Amino acid sequence: MAIIKVSIIPLGTGATSVSQYVARAVEILEGEQDIKYELTAMGTIVEGDLDRLLALARKMHETVFDAGAMRAVTTIEIDDRRDKPSGISSKIESVKKKLGH
Amino acid sequence: MAIIKVSIIPLGTGATSVSQYVARAVEILEGEQDIKYELTAMGTIVEGDLDRLLALARKMHETVFDAGAMRAVTTIEIDDRRDKPSGISSKIESVKKKLGH
Amino acid sequence: MAIIKVSIIPLGTGATSVSQYVARAVEILEGEQDIKYELTAMGTIVEGDLDRLLALARKMHETVFDAGAMRAVTTIEIDDRRDKPSGISSKIESVKKKLGH
Amino acid sequence: MAIIKVSIIPLGTGATSVSQYVARAVEILEGEQDIKYELTAMGTIVEGDLDRLLALARKMHETVFDAGAMRAVTTIEIDDRRDKPSGISSKIESVKKKLGH
Repeated sequence: MAIIKVSIIPLGTGATSVSQYVARAVEILEGEQDIKYELTAMGTIVEGDLDRLLALARKMHETVFDAGAMRAVTTIEIDDRRDKPSGISSKIESVKKKLGH
Repeated sequence: MAIIKVSIIPLGTGATSVSQYVARAVEILEGEQDIKYELTAMGTIVEGDLDRLLALARKMHETVFDAGAMRAVTTIEIDDRRDKPSGISSKIESVKKKLGH
Repeated sequence: MAIIKVSIIPLGTGATSVSQYVARAVEILEGEQDIKYELTAMGTIVEGDLDRLLALARKMHETVFDAGAMRAVTTIEIDDRRDKPSGISSKIESVKKKLGH
Repeated sequence: MAIIKVSIIPLGTGATSVSQYVARAVEILEGEQDIKYELTAMGTIVEGDLDRLLALARKMHETVFDAGAMRAVTTIEIDDRRDKPSGISSKIESVKKKLGH
């Protein structure tokens, strides 16, 4: 199990807003089973099997071109931990515990 | 008003876990007024005046060395939009609306 | 043709230096045909067919675990432009020309 | 001494090309003394005192708005090593040596 963050920026669209592109990319994740994701203001965080996550990120990237953009800068950040189970919730909980929350 | 995402990775600490370092960095944000932040599994998202955000990110970076690490890779992603007000909540809401949520 | 930048950070290795891990990852690229890459101080930039690049980045990520690390944070930045040919050299040349170099 | 990588993406400009924006940002670095920088296809790498680097990155970010863009996504990656001197050249040399180049 790994965690990735995917952020997608379409270029040359003529509009400062990118939410319609982000929404199309996130639709790829809806309906996927055994995939947990979280929308943030700076990218979408997804948890699951790494190879499957990368295949989904590749599909998310493609949606930008399907939506008409001619250039996209997509960043995929992978956090892959193999000494113990780690996920979106446990990572946040671990920091909160240390903060005394 | 801008949004930044700060992620901090200490190197050479000998431990796979980094939550104690992240917690120390996030403590910088607690108690700050007029600063809204959100802890995610892939970094801390902070909203506010850009110059102030960058000064806070610089302080967050320094906490890793205060905690004993000798090397840190810190990434600061800035989303700065000046044609209309934008914040953590409004960015997420905008995508959700397009998703029909 | 796309360009990606791959940066790999092993965690919990006990050493501040990561060059031996980076070297193992870069070895994946040596000997690959039709793949052009450039080593930089902040990641390796690779040019080629996007799907092939992503498969190579996946292999590069795995080398960190083969080398004994138990956690890795790998970032893959994709610049994918489809309105005209773009590559490592042409991108740099384009900026240099505007700088008057 | 630290190393940073600055990458700047203007949004909503209507053009797929961003080289004119990048060139304006890089001009900030020209003429700066004691600052070494390297243009890459995926961002500009700069070496020097960390606080000075961050001040320069802030100025580079601002040039995008001076050039007419209304939104910019700027990423600043910091590699800060304090156990021994590290720079752009020494980092690359270290990997190349391990590769047997």
